[in-house]
Amino acid sequence: MEINGVKIDDTFAEAFPIKVSRVLITAITERWAVEAAREATGFGTSVIMCPAEAGIECIVPAEETPDGRPGVYIMICNMGWKNLEASLLARIGQCVLTAPTTAVFNGLPGAEKQFDTGKKLSYFADGYQCDLERYGRQLCKIPIMEGDFYTEQTLGAVDGIAGGNFYILAQNQAAALTAAEAAVDEIRRKKGTITPFPGGVVASGSKVGSKYKFLKASTNAAFCPSLREDGVCVLPEEVTAGYEIVVNGVSREAIEDSMRAGIKAACRVPGVLKITAANFEGKLGPHHFHLHKILE
Amino acid sequence: MEINGVKIDDTFAEAFPIKVSRVLITAITERWAVEAAREATGFGTSVIMCPAEAGIECIVPAEETPDGRPGVYIMICNMGWKNLEASLLARIGQCVLTAPTTAVFNGLPGAEKQFDTGKKLSYFADGYQCDLERYGRQLCKIPIMEGDFYTEQTLGAVDGIAGGNFYILAQNQAAALTAAEAAVDEIRRKKGTITPFPGGVVASGSKVGSKYKFLKASTNAAFCPSLREDGVCVLPEEVTAGYEIVVNGVSREAIEDSMRAGIKAACRVPGVLKITAANFEGKLGPHHFHLHKILE
Amino acid sequence: MEINGVKIDDTFAEAFPIKVSRVLITAITERWAVEAAREATGFGTSVIMCPAEAGIECIVPAEETPDGRPGVYIMICNMGWKNLEASLLARIGQCVLTAPTTAVFNGLPGAEKQFDTGKKLSYFADGYQCDLERYGRQLCKIPIMEGDFYTEQTLGAVDGIAGGNFYILAQNQAAALTAAEAAVDEIRRKKGTITPFPGGVVASGSKVGSKYKFLKASTNAAFCPSLREDGVCVLPEEVTAGYEIVVNGVSREAIEDSMRAGIKAACRVPGVLKITAANFEGKLGPHHFHLHKILE
Amino acid sequence: MEINGVKIDDTFAEAFPIKVSRVLITAITERWAVEAAREATGFGTSVIMCPAEAGIECIVPAEETPDGRPGVYIMICNMGWKNLEASLLARIGQCVLTAPTTAVFNGLPGAEKQFDTGKKLSYFADGYQCDLERYGRQLCKIPIMEGDFYTEQTLGAVDGIAGGNFYILAQNQAAALTAAEAAVDEIRRKKGTITPFPGGVVASGSKVGSKYKFLKASTNAAFCPSLREDGVCVLPEEVTAGYEIVVNGVSREAIEDSMRAGIKAACRVPGVLKITAANFEGKLGPHHFHLHKILE
Repeated sequence: MEINGVKIDDTFAEAFPIKVSRVLITAITERWAVEAAREATGFGTSVIMCPAEAGIECIVPAEETPDGRPGVYIMICNMGWKNLEASLLARIGQCVLTAPTTAVFNGLPGAEKQFDTGKKLSYFADGYQCDLERYGRQLCKIPIMEGDFYTEQTLGAVDGIAGGNFYILAQNQAAALTAAEAAVDEIRRKKGTITPFPGGVVASGSKVGSKYKFLKASTNAAFCPSLREDGVCVLPEEVTAGYEIVVNGVSREAIEDSMRAGIKAACRVPGVLKITAANFEGKLGPHHFHLHKILE
Repeated sequence: MEINGVKIDDTFAEAFPIKVSRVLITAITERWAVEAAREATGFGTSVIMCPAEAGIECIVPAEETPDGRPGVYIMICNMGWKNLEASLLARIGQCVLTAPTTAVFNGLPGAEKQFDTGKKLSYFADGYQCDLERYGRQLCKIPIMEGDFYTEQTLGAVDGIAGGNFYILAQNQAAALTAAEAAVDEIRRKKGTITPFPGGVVASGSKVGSKYKFLKASTNAAFCPSLREDGVCVLPEEVTAGYEIVVNGVSREAIEDSMRAGIKAACRVPGVLKITAANFEGKLGPHHFHLHKILE
Repeated sequence: MEINGVKIDDTFAEAFPIKVSRVLITAITERWAVEAAREATGFGTSVIMCPAEAGIECIVPAEETPDGRPGVYIMICNMGWKNLEASLLARIGQCVLTAPTTAVFNGLPGAEKQFDTGKKLSYFADGYQCDLERYGRQLCKIPIMEGDFYTEQTLGAVDGIAGGNFYILAQNQAAALTAAEAAVDEIRRKKGTITPFPGGVVASGSKVGSKYKFLKASTNAAFCPSLREDGVCVLPEEVTAGYEIVVNGVSREAIEDSMRAGIKAACRVPGVLKITAANFEGKLGPHHFHLHKILE
Repeated sequence: MEINGVKIDDTFAEAFPIKVSRVLITAITERWAVEAAREATGFGTSVIMCPAEAGIECIVPAEETPDGRPGVYIMICNMGWKNLEASLLARIGQCVLTAPTTAVFNGLPGAEKQFDTGKKLSYFADGYQCDLERYGRQLCKIPIMEGDFYTEQTLGAVDGIAGGNFYILAQNQAAALTAAEAAVDEIRRKKGTITPFPGGVVASGSKVGSKYKFLKASTNAAFCPSLREDGVCVLPEEVTAGYEIVVNGVSREAIEDSMRAGIKAACRVPGVLKITAANFEGKLGPHHFHLHKILE
């Protein structure tokens, strides 16, 4: 298969189950909503050594939020409900409650799993908290220095998928990186997914395991252009750099939609030679995303 | 004392000792250096519930970096050397090694305390790592998908100070927030300090302790305008909103310099009524920053 | 009428007819499309002394553009078809043809009025230009240093309206400005309108005419808070600052929609006291936008 | 000559005399100073069909401006003093006087040539203007809706140079563009120069003249990769894309300094093959910038 002359490998991305919460942050301007969202989703690329995987899902206009202010949906992902609940409490409490002019709403109000994170946060008010209904939602009000902070009492979560991915292989680093940026440009408009790595891009794609027993993951040597002389690099001669785009999502469909948009965008960039994906013989997880099926 | 008609309270900020590491991230463009820095310093507002306090210190031009590329200094702060070392390994490993085109240099090469974080990260190369000297620095080279990642072998750290602060009290929220933004504009050019909260601003200034024993900190009720009728708010009648700027730094002098620049900037914004600072009878820490002394 | 406690004056904005062209700029990434759009629409606030009125209308994803790349719609407005044609040729030729990776498409392909701007631009190719059909559009190809530049042969234009407006009056400058930013945040997502002033905001609203005969417009003294002692300021005592949002559009409906969204956003900002609009006894133009009608 | 393995052609950039004014815009925050500067310098790439050449020179902190607020220096360039004066009046009047919270200061107070632009702008106050001395500068105060606008009475200008340039030739478009961005990253920190094209980059480098008599400039066919089969392209086979960086400045030294920093930055990007420059047998102007001399 080819798109714009770029070869699409007949392979699949291997992904794993993860718990996903989705939170809507609103603020007085889009800029401040984004500031809060960035802080709340930072240090959140991979559960290997980050306390969670997190990212900005998309920005929504005032007319799509309960309080009629601009909003940003974020996703926070973790292994197991307990870890996820702890991540929500810490990240929303330390990075959104503290951020100027923000409010917090449940991004998955219909989900079966609901955490009472907002209720727990309200103890910060030291006895001055109160519950109220507004916009058809159950909120807590927390008096703070800037005025009153409002958060929905519960935040929902679902069984999602982490590690959806594709690799962009190119003639040189700048072509691969420009294609990665173009791919992320499209994915960050899509609902239901995030690209948790810095700027949405992974420079150091990894394989499961390592020759060192204390490491869970190590450089994906087969895709390292500078290891060609060592005989471990399997890349075509003309590829000198590659990036990985990792996509987490609330559902298989959301991830497929984002992968499709991202791959198409990447293939429009001159110098991109090949799209492939990473899989690990089932060591990472049970979910498969076949590139050809997604793109047909 | 008054600046531009804004009253400066005769009080002091109470701050506490913290361990501070300073890391220089370079990249192919300033934009990508900033992306990596943001990810590496996110979820890093307060050690109360964040795994570290972290922030962008300042951006430097190519001529001030070892590899002649644009750079961003970040600071990562934690309680105790062991926690700091763990934070460095996780944040640099997960958020900078993974970020496009970056390299990592020691931001405190002359410090007595040095961690071998770069050396530890190099195991990610799964046996293909190597040491080399370049730019007069001892580096590790790690083959990755985009090419080779370079990190200095050691990263330095010093005894620093966290919690330097001032409060901006204003006629309304927008005036306080605009003043906070103006203050952060100046502080983020200064070397040696960070403002770790979202966008550099704290909306929910806290006091030490709470009526709830499970909480280490709670809303600073005396400064909450909406608690006026409850009789706990001590703010002047005309103040309806306030923000706190928290400053961490490598030294007392650096924090004083940033507080001075920030306060002056805040006092230029119409609608700002008063500058004060938070202290807690020694419950937070031994360092005092007297506003009048800093500003005289 | 009140929104969120903010008084909406029972008055109307007076606006005038203008010719409007709408152009779609695509590029390899959204960032580069925006760079080109900014340059092409700069120095374009008011036809009083600018060579055109121009602005960014909205950003669209790859799936909404002919060449499947991210895009930005801009609007260029001028008095009379001839002036508009000259503006298009100069602004697209100097600011988009010269911008990295861009292509140009007709933003009003169904309009009766069509300029052959693309065709004229193609002479830049010095004989190497050629026509072709692609994406169902008639294009010109112009060989340039980065590769080939593509522009649609014709660019459409319609009879539109300039000078739709509302005033945001507030307790202080920061509140008025934050409200103006919130208003512009919403309007810049709407199709069919632009806010041509810097950042979408006018700090120096004007009236038609002046005591100096060589000036077509002068400060709207009745709305200048610092002229209160001179007896010319008609603002309520508690208003100390105001901003104007000017909206140009392809149609009355588009302008009404943007004014509505903008006013609602502004009214959510604490410290905003009143919304009004500017009219000039018919000296500016025949179009009236009654605030109460738009908002009911 | 080679830098990082990139060949530097033994050639020179040909440039021409231009009149240059330098204006300092300050505002309540850096963000608003930049907004005003962008609007004031837009539609300002080349005097061929733009009403001026203009750009942002650099951003300066509060401590380097007369009113202690963050500032942005812009440069406006034109052919002849009269054109320059008209450009200043229109651009400052329409794009800075109208921009939120700005003030205007003379960026060349020591220059022999001084325009009374501020004085002329003050007539906008319709009789309510007044002169005053502040910060050791002679200012005009103009009452406007947001409060009072201050501008220095005179704005200075000097004999400068336009069209300093270098070409970045690369393996593909993304490599050339990333190198161009890296070059502009460095130049925009330098005092005394601007890169007037969109994002600082020219995609369609031109030669003087054309086979069409009505055109002053046309595509530089010898550097168009897609004209290889036509036999007019002189580029090496492996070059498939190039960008030009145009530098205007207040002096030869300033331009040399910026060209040096920009070329060095470009040469650090993988995939860049060659740096050259454009000259036109004296048809453009008398100033020569020899690449080897600048870089030695």
